[in-house]
Amino acid sequence: MTQPMLVNGQPAHAIPADDRGFQYGDGLFETALLVNGRVRFIDDHYQRLFAGCARLGIAPPERQTLSREIAQVTADAERGVLKIIVTRGAGGRGYRPGSAMSSTRVVALHPFNPAPHGALRLRWCDIRLGRNARLAGIKHLNRLEQVLAQSEWRDGEVDEGLMLDTEGEVVCATSANVFVVRDGAVVTPDLRFCGVQGVMRAQVLKAATKLRLSVNEEPLWPHDLETASEVFITNAVRGIRSVASLDSLQWSETSIATRLATELSLRD
Amino acid sequence: MTQPMLVNGQPAHAIPADDRGFQYGDGLFETALLVNGRVRFIDDHYQRLFAGCARLGIAPPERQTLSREIAQVTADAERGVLKIIVTRGAGGRGYRPGSAMSSTRVVALHPFNPAPHGALRLRWCDIRLGRNARLAGIKHLNRLEQVLAQSEWRDGEVDEGLMLDTEGEVVCATSANVFVVRDGAVVTPDLRFCGVQGVMRAQVLKAATKLRLSVNEEPLWPHDLETASEVFITNAVRGIRSVASLDSLQWSETSIATRLATELSLRD
Repeated sequence: MTQPMLVNGQPAHAIPADDRGFQYGDGLFETALLVNGRVRFIDDHYQRLFAGCARLGIAPPERQTLSREIAQVTADAERGVLKIIVTRGAGGRGYRPGSAMSSTRVVALHPFNPAPHGALRLRWCDIRLGRNARLAGIKHLNRLEQVLAQSEWRDGEVDEGLMLDTEGEVVCATSANVFVVRDGAVVTPDLRFCGVQGVMRAQVLKAATKLRLSVNEEPLWPHDLETASEVFITNAVRGIRSVASLDSLQWSETSIATRLATELSLRD
Repeated sequence: MTQPMLVNGQPAHAIPADDRGFQYGDGLFETALLVNGRVRFIDDHYQRLFAGCARLGIAPPERQTLSREIAQVTADAERGVLKIIVTRGAGGRGYRPGSAMSSTRVVALHPFNPAPHGALRLRWCDIRLGRNARLAGIKHLNRLEQVLAQSEWRDGEVDEGLMLDTEGEVVCATSANVFVVRDGAVVTPDLRFCGVQGVMRAQVLKAATKLRLSVNEEPLWPHDLETASEVFITNAVRGIRSVASLDSLQWSETSIATRLATELSLRD
């Protein structure tokens, strides 16, 4: 482990075993792209992180503190993946949080591994996402469903998997949001029961509106994939990626994804 | 932190920050009672832990290794709470597990805090449990729902909370299983969509059968609480605890809970 990492501001690569992040997944994380020495969309990442802290009742770290620590771990880097973890803190045994806990923060820079170019091959995942509106949208640390989903295929067989919730609605890819183009309109799941409100997803919705495309957040079903003229997935690190196939379904259209990526200057 | 704790067999109170238990809640745990220097129902705890490893595709630790480490942390103690955590291991970034990861194990002894005597006061929790049959029954580390549930009341207001799933079925208490007595039969939720297959729950089902009581595992609804003649909750550390009230519902009957506790010799 040679990545620069700060735990509560101190260089470290370990956390106390009684941290509630480890004991219960009681925390949140953010994954952002460092490009040309700057963290892309950092304000959006802060905003989601603080919204998650508010939802879970976790004491949010100071923005200034995070900002200083991010500057420290990224000081010598031009490109990389910044990961921030914030947990409820250390101590106690039992689910009940202590009354005045100090949250734990981990700020680390990881290498950026460029993904293969070109449109992606997707599959449907077998495992479903459980519905819980109270945990929907935020990027919390309870990620066993995503771990099991990515265990369903071998490296190289496909590039990503699409996930349904337990009622059969399309939610997201295992680590990306999903968009379909239907009659020229850009449509993405509304994430009212599960899934993460992606930073790139929000940027894409804004950019699509700016391009005067029709935009809808609504319940999406497998049928909507079958009838889509174009499909793409988005995440903060990988940007916007066109989808070439989903099991036996195929798409060659990539024009709206390309326009959105240009609008957001993601091509550099 | 003065509890005896072993991390992968070594005395330690920290784990690597890249452990997947911390990053994603990618692991399992057990909480058992040490009484008279022995771990109560240890075979049942091993069995559930190994079943959880199999379900999640985590390399199980050797039973002999765990047994040796448990003997080490409990060597000087008569009474306490033994906690075992097993995660998929350390390393990597991204949900996909590495191909041949070594699991992490943490074995620790915590003090046993005797609970107040007498029957318990319960409340209905507001937060629901998401349904996911793939994660049901095992004691995995994704416990945000239970953390939020226990945050709903202040210490001392009530003793426990009962939880419904998102469809309105009764599942469990925040850290215990629940039983109702209906026409003399002992009934408990079947846990097909969520909840943990408790070690004490299994013992109670066995003991009830031995006492020639009628026993049912089936879907349970709030109505079943309203019409129950007796209610009790169970967990491995606290044993069998009679319930005196659930919000405005009240019970004075404790006879079946008492017979089961006697049958299981839990009163010492």
